[in-house]
Amino acid sequence: MDLLPLPAPGATPICVMTIAGSDSGGAAGLQSDLRTFALAGVHGTCAVTAVTVQNSLGVTGFHPVPPPTVAAQIRAVASDIGVSAAKTGMLADAGIIAAVADTASDIGLGQRIPFLVDPVSASHHGEPLLTPEAFELLVGRLFPLATIVTPNLDEVRLLTGIDVVDDATQRDAARALHATGPRWVLVKGGHLRTAVTSTDLLYDGSDFVEFEAQRIETQHDHGAGDTLGAAVTCALAEGMSVPDAVAFGKEWVTRSLAAAYPLGAGHGPVSASWRLREQPPA
Amino acid sequence: MDLLPLPAPGATPICVMTIAGSDSGGAAGLQSDLRTFALAGVHGTCAVTAVTVQNSLGVTGFHPVPPPTVAAQIRAVASDIGVSAAKTGMLADAGIIAAVADTASDIGLGQRIPFLVDPVSASHHGEPLLTPEAFELLVGRLFPLATIVTPNLDEVRLLTGIDVVDDATQRDAARALHATGPRWVLVKGGHLRTAVTSTDLLYDGSDFVEFEAQRIETQHDHGAGDTLGAAVTCALAEGMSVPDAVAFGKEWVTRSLAAAYPLGAGHGPVSASWRLREQPPA
Repeated sequence: MDLLPLPAPGATPICVMTIAGSDSGGAAGLQSDLRTFALAGVHGTCAVTAVTVQNSLGVTGFHPVPPPTVAAQIRAVASDIGVSAAKTGMLADAGIIAAVADTASDIGLGQRIPFLVDPVSASHHGEPLLTPEAFELLVGRLFPLATIVTPNLDEVRLLTGIDVVDDATQRDAARALHATGPRWVLVKGGHLRTAVTSTDLLYDGSDFVEFEAQRIETQHDHGAGDTLGAAVTCALAEGMSVPDAVAFGKEWVTRSLAAAYPLGAGHGPVSASWRLREQPPA
Repeated sequence: MDLLPLPAPGATPICVMTIAGSDSGGAAGLQSDLRTFALAGVHGTCAVTAVTVQNSLGVTGFHPVPPPTVAAQIRAVASDIGVSAAKTGMLADAGIIAAVADTASDIGLGQRIPFLVDPVSASHHGEPLLTPEAFELLVGRLFPLATIVTPNLDEVRLLTGIDVVDDATQRDAARALHATGPRWVLVKGGHLRTAVTSTDLLYDGSDFVEFEAQRIETQHDHGAGDTLGAAVTCALAEGMSVPDAVAFGKEWVTRSLAAAYPLGAGHGPVSASWRLREQPPA
């Protein structure tokens, strides 16, 4: 695949931001985002929304960061370092979602700055991560700001009530989600376990674009959604169009799924460490 | 320089842990540690101690994580994923330091598992980060567990009262610090602004080893201490001796200082992104 260009040594790379929770196990969450940022050669900044106690077996503890501290982190970065694109991960609770929506709006996320909203609403292990009130704010306040939203099929079901089982229902889901306000919707098909390929469907309200990849059979797919979203965010920050950025992200996560490894007694993480085996870009 | 070996694709890399605060600007703290872990090819895990609101100009906000949540993160990782080496960064307050000391002791940090204690006690911008009580606990409870402590000259002054101005005072400081209980002491000379070279002095209670590197003139050295400590931690996890691990870390941070870049209106970060331009290890 074509890697992103690297800045000259000593030159400032593009700066991206993740607004996300911490996974102590290092598989998903901001750890996964920062890993992709580092391996893509961009500068990663970070607003921490919550600290989870987590390993490969699940989440056993959870400490949300106060909403004003979440907002202050975003403002501190935007006002000095700048943000070329941002993504959200787990936003923990209604107060945090409201704070992120207010701040995102103020600094221009989704307006002049590409803004990927990953509607994380359940952990990898199925634990619900958002209350109904928080979920409503996520859709009502953040989706209309989003350049792109990137739900998986479990999240699609929660968001639209649609059970995606084939191409037609995947399109129905994309239409329903687009009506909630984002510029683009990416319905990720990776969780459609019956398919041989993994098809992600991108929709902008008029055209559908399909991104197909060979399904990688692995039980070690923790952090796959974060890794895709982080790679798309880097590509958007580089100035790529949304379809090109999604194509880049899909290749990045497919390679990272192929490089996933066991970790602990449960699900291991996808790994962008394949990048360390690449020849450097010219 | 010799890079660390990469695991075969799909094989589990060695797992290291940082116990540290978040820097929203992405220059220092756990962001810096995780960047070095990712670029060194190891799996990074993470116990978040505090969330700072920070950019290139300084720290404007601070939210400590409750001590039981800090301890729970460490235990969740150790009990499932395992830890081959660990490091500490900013530990925020007395309650967190006590929780880290208790947990570190329980899981064998500094005993069967190499444990680097970086006595972070002031921010890059000089703001004090520890109360006197916290400082006492850091020395009284964590130093005796440490495989190696890695103070810079500002921290040496706080810890020993010794103003390092030359080789003799650097040795005096190493002796005074070794008496507080760690197996090894690394007195980092990088802040001795008068020298042409940057000499770090390693001491195990009997022998001194000097690590010299050309001083890199840059105002963009944010995260240098974290980057050195993170690289040493990776090398210790790989089974290197302490002197070999320090030599590796010193080379890693010297290259990262040479690749530092401007960011925002203040101090930019050192950058391990030079790794992305390297030929992959055979």
